[in-house]
Amino acid sequence: MKLSARGQTAPFVAMDVLSEATRLEGQGARVLHMEVGEPAFGAPAAARAALAAAEARGETLGYTSGLGTMALREAIASLYARRHGIDVDPGCVVVTAGSSAAFVMAFLALFEAGDRMALADPGYPAYRNTLSALGLEAVRLETDLATRYQPTPEHLAAARTAGQLDGLLVASPANPTGTMLDAPALRALVADCAAHDTALIVDEIYHGITYGERAVSALEISDDLIVVNSFSKYYAMTGWRIGWMVVPEALVRPLQNLAQNLFICASHPAQAAALGALSPEGEAEAEGHMADYRANREVVIAALARLGFRDIAPADGAFYAYATLPEEWDDSMAFSKRLLAEHHVAATPGLDFDPVRGGHTMRFSYAQAPAVVAEAMERLAEMLRRGP
Amino acid sequence: MKLSARGQTAPFVAMDVLSEATRLEGQGARVLHMEVGEPAFGAPAAARAALAAAEARGETLGYTSGLGTMALREAIASLYARRHGIDVDPGCVVVTAGSSAAFVMAFLALFEAGDRMALADPGYPAYRNTLSALGLEAVRLETDLATRYQPTPEHLAAARTAGQLDGLLVASPANPTGTMLDAPALRALVADCAAHDTALIVDEIYHGITYGERAVSALEISDDLIVVNSFSKYYAMTGWRIGWMVVPEALVRPLQNLAQNLFICASHPAQAAALGALSPEGEAEAEGHMADYRANREVVIAALARLGFRDIAPADGAFYAYATLPEEWDDSMAFSKRLLAEHHVAATPGLDFDPVRGGHTMRFSYAQAPAVVAEAMERLAEMLRRGP
Repeated sequence: MKLSARGQTAPFVAMDVLSEATRLEGQGARVLHMEVGEPAFGAPAAARAALAAAEARGETLGYTSGLGTMALREAIASLYARRHGIDVDPGCVVVTAGSSAAFVMAFLALFEAGDRMALADPGYPAYRNTLSALGLEAVRLETDLATRYQPTPEHLAAARTAGQLDGLLVASPANPTGTMLDAPALRALVADCAAHDTALIVDEIYHGITYGERAVSALEISDDLIVVNSFSKYYAMTGWRIGWMVVPEALVRPLQNLAQNLFICASHPAQAAALGALSPEGEAEAEGHMADYRANREVVIAALARLGFRDIAPADGAFYAYATLPEEWDDSMAFSKRLLAEHHVAATPGLDFDPVRGGHTMRFSYAQAPAVVAEAMERLAEMLRRGP
Repeated sequence: MKLSARGQTAPFVAMDVLSEATRLEGQGARVLHMEVGEPAFGAPAAARAALAAAEARGETLGYTSGLGTMALREAIASLYARRHGIDVDPGCVVVTAGSSAAFVMAFLALFEAGDRMALADPGYPAYRNTLSALGLEAVRLETDLATRYQPTPEHLAAARTAGQLDGLLVASPANPTGTMLDAPALRALVADCAAHDTALIVDEIYHGITYGERAVSALEISDDLIVVNSFSKYYAMTGWRIGWMVVPEALVRPLQNLAQNLFICASHPAQAAALGALSPEGEAEAEGHMADYRANREVVIAALARLGFRDIAPADGAFYAYATLPEEWDDSMAFSKRLLAEHHVAATPGLDFDPVRGGHTMRFSYAQAPAVVAEAMERLAEMLRRGP
């Protein structure tokens, strides 16, 4: 025999863009990166210092509980008191290897093979690819500007005509649009899911990065749901792979067992660093990046509007601009390839986020330094001046 | 509704032992730990220094490729040249969040729901629990001293009378027995799997920790299989969660896609540290622990034999002693509980490793300092003197 992969998982188009960008950089090109949702800053100094201090104290940084260290779980719980004025039981916080592992664990704990999970399109591609890898069915909810690209009970009712929805996954702020669910919108989804035995998972990974209204946590409305979050975005610790879930008490022990078997625990050095990120110094450094994101957002949205992009999503948070190509352009993959090849700007065609309608949309990530983002917008303008 | 876990995963009994040990320690008891397979030493200084150096160079330690950094993949490939005299293509090395994530990815890539995977009993419990969580069937191969607790083509032939075996997972050295497959035994399994379309995964996580014969890598025999390994054991980096697979070329891209979607990448700081562990200084520190393991092994095996334990597994490697209780004792769970409660020695009943026959066996992990291990054996002797 020759070993082969029987379970095939779709790649991210963004990663292919990144590979091509890396190839061009290898040839000496100066590529401006707007393709990956990754802050340019790195972990707060207080996070790195906390890890160094743990090592200096002689901690061996061995296995932790599958749920994470109690110190980190308590610090995460206290974040909800500070940000949202709510009590979260540290015992219900599950530390994970990034939000990615949180989704794997939540899906495996909540669902059985063949279960149907509803997701907004456009949305983060790993959601549906992970569901598919685990034998679950992703049910697409086509959203548009009319509901800020967020699902509503009407979307769910329509999807239920084809069968029970076992789960709903929403993100607020969302990737790729940056739009949020406000308290009434969240409340409507929570009530609808409760009434229809639909398990609700809310991805709050971009909490902390908002530009007007504050982000409402689903935990302000109910504790009979799973909230997923991470140190990757606001705390700029992408590569550390450290995130968390807040879950109903009944799920704690099942998730601990799953974690022990599938992962043992999240990286202990990353847990030690994350504890430092939650210190006042760590928070201050993270908050300091907001000025850059805010400036970038103004520049990018103004540029896209001026250049004829349409249906620009009203980004309440995160660091993405999602929009439909200008009228004379009709293929986002070709657009992305030419932008990279001729102008050395990497950006992601909408196909990653919406396999059906994404052929006409682009996502620009503005998590880089303002000078980089401003120059990228100039290069984009130059390509549009030249025309298709 | 109330959210509940529909997919339940079995816990490790060892983790319950650990919890009870931690509770006793909270009351001031000095517990000697022989329950968890974790070296007491922590990462090599060269590993910690490599991470500090990466940070000092200003590296932001962001996302890496789903396959890991090329520097680490090359360093891992060169380990096979040094240890085994074979060429491994760095492009076929997949860096993972510990061997745990490697198994999740290998199972998802190779198998479809309902597939049957054969495993030796006794064996590492996460294998069968992970298979079960992913909807795959674990087929138990009852092994005993006659084959050094390792499966043979005869075991596989017997298991195939109930249906096709889609996969076989073997470990060498194995947990909980420490026994190895020598070159002829491995060759026989490789040939049998090739003849029967059975995908072969070989867990080599204890390579480097051997006491007589060198450990043979399955890659010396064939490259049409998956080898799993990790920095957790020989390099004592358990909590960092960093491991790897070597896979056939045809599996690289499918595994990269799976990694991107399910994990994004292994922790980048852990990847940077692992590169340091593979330096001559890191290797020297890891090799330095062998004197302790060797001394512990002699002490533990001699003590168990003297105290009437039976069928002591001939541990070629790893840091475990696995044996049947002395004649007058007949319940390993009760034995383990009393050993912990009255003598403050934590050890693992065999039920973790063999759900059917483990009620009469115990595993003692001797990865602690020699003084701790020697004292634990004295306490064990005291309990046996008192009698059941």
